[in-house]
Amino acid sequence: MKFIIAKDALVQSVQDVMKAVSSRTTIPILTGIKIVATDEGVTLTGSDSDISIESFIPVEEDGKEIVDIHHSGSIVLPARFFSEIVRKLPKESVEIEVQPHFSTVIRSGKAEFNLNGLDAEEYPHLPQIEEENAFKISTDLLKNMIRQTVFAVSTSETRPILTGVNWKVEDKILTCIATDSHRLALRKAPVEIDADSSYNVVIPGKSLSEFSKILDDSHDLVDIVITNNQVLFKTKHILFFSRLLDGNYPDTSRLIPSESKTDMTLNVKEFLQAIDRASLLAKEGRNNVVKLSTLEEGVVEISSNSPEIGKVIEEVQSQSIDGEDLKISFSAKYMLDALKALEGTEIKVSFTGAMRPFIIRTPEDDSMLQLILPVRTY
Amino acid sequence: MKFIIAKDALVQSVQDVMKAVSSRTTIPILTGIKIVATDEGVTLTGSDSDISIESFIPVEEDGKEIVDIHHSGSIVLPARFFSEIVRKLPKESVEIEVQPHFSTVIRSGKAEFNLNGLDAEEYPHLPQIEEENAFKISTDLLKNMIRQTVFAVSTSETRPILTGVNWKVEDKILTCIATDSHRLALRKAPVEIDADSSYNVVIPGKSLSEFSKILDDSHDLVDIVITNNQVLFKTKHILFFSRLLDGNYPDTSRLIPSESKTDMTLNVKEFLQAIDRASLLAKEGRNNVVKLSTLEEGVVEISSNSPEIGKVIEEVQSQSIDGEDLKISFSAKYMLDALKALEGTEIKVSFTGAMRPFIIRTPEDDSMLQLILPVRTY
Repeated sequence: MKFIIAKDALVQSVQDVMKAVSSRTTIPILTGIKIVATDEGVTLTGSDSDISIESFIPVEEDGKEIVDIHHSGSIVLPARFFSEIVRKLPKESVEIEVQPHFSTVIRSGKAEFNLNGLDAEEYPHLPQIEEENAFKISTDLLKNMIRQTVFAVSTSETRPILTGVNWKVEDKILTCIATDSHRLALRKAPVEIDADSSYNVVIPGKSLSEFSKILDDSHDLVDIVITNNQVLFKTKHILFFSRLLDGNYPDTSRLIPSESKTDMTLNVKEFLQAIDRASLLAKEGRNNVVKLSTLEEGVVEISSNSPEIGKVIEEVQSQSIDGEDLKISFSAKYMLDALKALEGTEIKVSFTGAMRPFIIRTPEDDSMLQLILPVRTY
Repeated sequence: MKFIIAKDALVQSVQDVMKAVSSRTTIPILTGIKIVATDEGVTLTGSDSDISIESFIPVEEDGKEIVDIHHSGSIVLPARFFSEIVRKLPKESVEIEVQPHFSTVIRSGKAEFNLNGLDAEEYPHLPQIEEENAFKISTDLLKNMIRQTVFAVSTSETRPILTGVNWKVEDKILTCIATDSHRLALRKAPVEIDADSSYNVVIPGKSLSEFSKILDDSHDLVDIVITNNQVLFKTKHILFFSRLLDGNYPDTSRLIPSESKTDMTLNVKEFLQAIDRASLLAKEGRNNVVKLSTLEEGVVEISSNSPEIGKVIEEVQSQSIDGEDLKISFSAKYMLDALKALEGTEIKVSFTGAMRPFIIRTPEDDSMLQLILPVRTY
C-alpha cells in the first residue's frame, strides 16, 4: 500500500473514526485504525465492537485531488500514535507506505515516522447491513433530537435497557424517548420513509452521543438503517454502526399525565438562572433539591435551604399562572437539563399536584416534552 | 456591616483572592474570604497560610462610584459558595448585609441569599511588613521573568529548596534562577531600587505561579518588599504575600559552562515542532528521550526509537553549525519547556560534549539562559 494524501482530509477522517476507538479493549487490534486504499480512495475504520465508524476519503472531491494512490492495500496502525502524528505533521501532504512486516512509513516534509503496523486481515469485519429499508432525516434535526433526549438516559447499569434511547418509527413519525425513571425526555419528528415500516428499538445513549459529535449542522439527509441488532447511520462519507440494546423498553406513555391542575408560562432564561442560583447551595446537601411555590400576582418562588451553609430565595415573575396554588420540590439538575434541552424563549410547566410527575414543554409545540418526578420533602 | 457594590468589581476581586484559598486546609476559617468594609472601601482577603492575597475595592475610582458603604464592619464568608454566588447574581449591583449571629444577606434583584458567616476577628492576621526597602519592576517584565523560570523548579520534595525560585538582587540587577537538578532556567533584569540593597531569597514556585495569574500585561510598576521570611508584592489594588523557603539555595554558577565546542543557530519554531513530533513516540518509552546528531551541510537530525511502536527521524536545517560534530541525547520535555520560555525567532544552542550540560539562549541576549543536562544513552 502506498498513497499520498492531503493532511487536512486525513486529520478530519482520523478524528472521526477515533470516536469509536477505546484504549480499554479486550481485543488488542481494536486499539488500531484500519486503513484500506483502493483506486476509489482511502477508507479508515475505528471500532470498540459496540460502535464502529468508517470514514471514506475519495480520490477526488469537487474537482480537487485529495488522494494519489500508488498501490492499493491495507494496514492497521496504532490509533493513538497515528492520530497524534498526522495532526502534527509539518506539510500539507502526507505519504503513507507499507513496507515488509507491516512496518509503515509516514512521511511529510523532513519528518519520517516508522510505525509498527498489524495485518488488516486480522481486523474484525463490520456488520453486513442491507440498505433497503433506510429512512432519512436531516442532519441538523437528527442532531437536535439526540441532544434533546440522550441526557436523560440512566447512567446506572441496574436496568441496562434504560441506558439507551427508545427509537420508535410509526406512521412516518420518529419518536425518541429516554428515561432514567426519575425524569423523561421525548422528542418526535417526521422522517422520510418509503414503505409503511415501523420500528421499535433501543440505541445505547453512548453511541448516540458519540455519533452526534460527528454530525455538522447541515440540512443534508442522513440515511438510517435498522436491523435486528444493529443500527447504521450513513452520511456522505461516514458509516456509523452501533449495536442495539437487547430487551423491551418500558411503556412510558402511561407516565405522561394528560391533564393538569396548575399551568405556568415562564421566560426560560430567567427561570433557568434562578434555578441555577438556588442549586448553588442545594448541591451541597443530598439530591440537589429546590422548592417551587406559587405566590400572589403570578410570582413563582424558588428556594433552597442547607442549614449548615445558608439559604436562598429567588422570585421569578411568570407570564401567567393558571389553576391551583402549588408547593413542589424537585431536582435542580433535572430541571436545568430539561430547560437546556428545550427550544424557544418561553416554556410552559404543567403540574398535577405536588406528588405527581410534571411536564415542561415549549408552548404550542407538542413535538418535544420533558417530564420530571418531584421529590417528597414533607 | 452593610454596603452596595458593583458586581463586576466584586467578582474580579473575589477571583483574585480565591487564588490563595485552598479547600484542603487545617485551619477551617481559611476556607473563607474575609470581607472588611470601611469608609474608604472594601477589602477582601484569602489565604492558605503560605500565600495571602488582599484585594482592595475603593469607594470610588476614576470618578465612578463602585461601593456605597452604609455601615462599616467585617465578616468571613465561605469562599467557594460566595464566589459562585456573586458570579451568578442577576443584577449589576449587589447588597451585602451582616445580620446578628454573622448571618449574611446577599441581595441582587429578586435573588436573596443568606450565608452563615464567621467572626472576622478569628481570621489570622497577615504578616506586618515594613515597606521601606521596596524595589520596583514593571508588571509585564515581572510576569515574563516568572514565566521563564518557574517551570524549571523541582516538583519533588526530596530537596525542598529546589521547589522554589532563587531571587537575587545585586548591583540593581534582579536574577531569577530555578533548577530541578536536571535543567536550569535563568533570567535577569534591572530593577528600580534606591539603596545599594542586596537580597538572596528563595520564593516557592507555587506562589510565583499563582501571583503571575493575577498580573496583567501593563507597564505599571509592582513594588516588591523582601523580609526575613516573607515577600510582599504590591500592585495598585492587590497585596500578595508569600512565605520564603528556608535554607540555602545551591550555588548554580559553576554549573553553567563558560565555553563551548559545538554551536548551532536554529529557527525556534521548526526546531520546537521537530522535537515535539519526535517526542510523540519517545513519551511512551522511559524518560521521553530524543537524540540529536549533526549531519553534513548544517543539517541537524532529531530521532527517537521505541522498539514496540516504531521510530521517527526529523531533519532540521540550521542557520549555522560551528565546531565539532556531535551526538547527544536529552529529555524532549525539558527542551520543549526551554524553547517555549525563550523569546524571539532564533535560538543558539551551545554544547561542550555529549556528557556535559548544554545551553540554549536567544542570540545576542545574555539576560536569559536555559541549561539542560544530557541523558547517557550509550
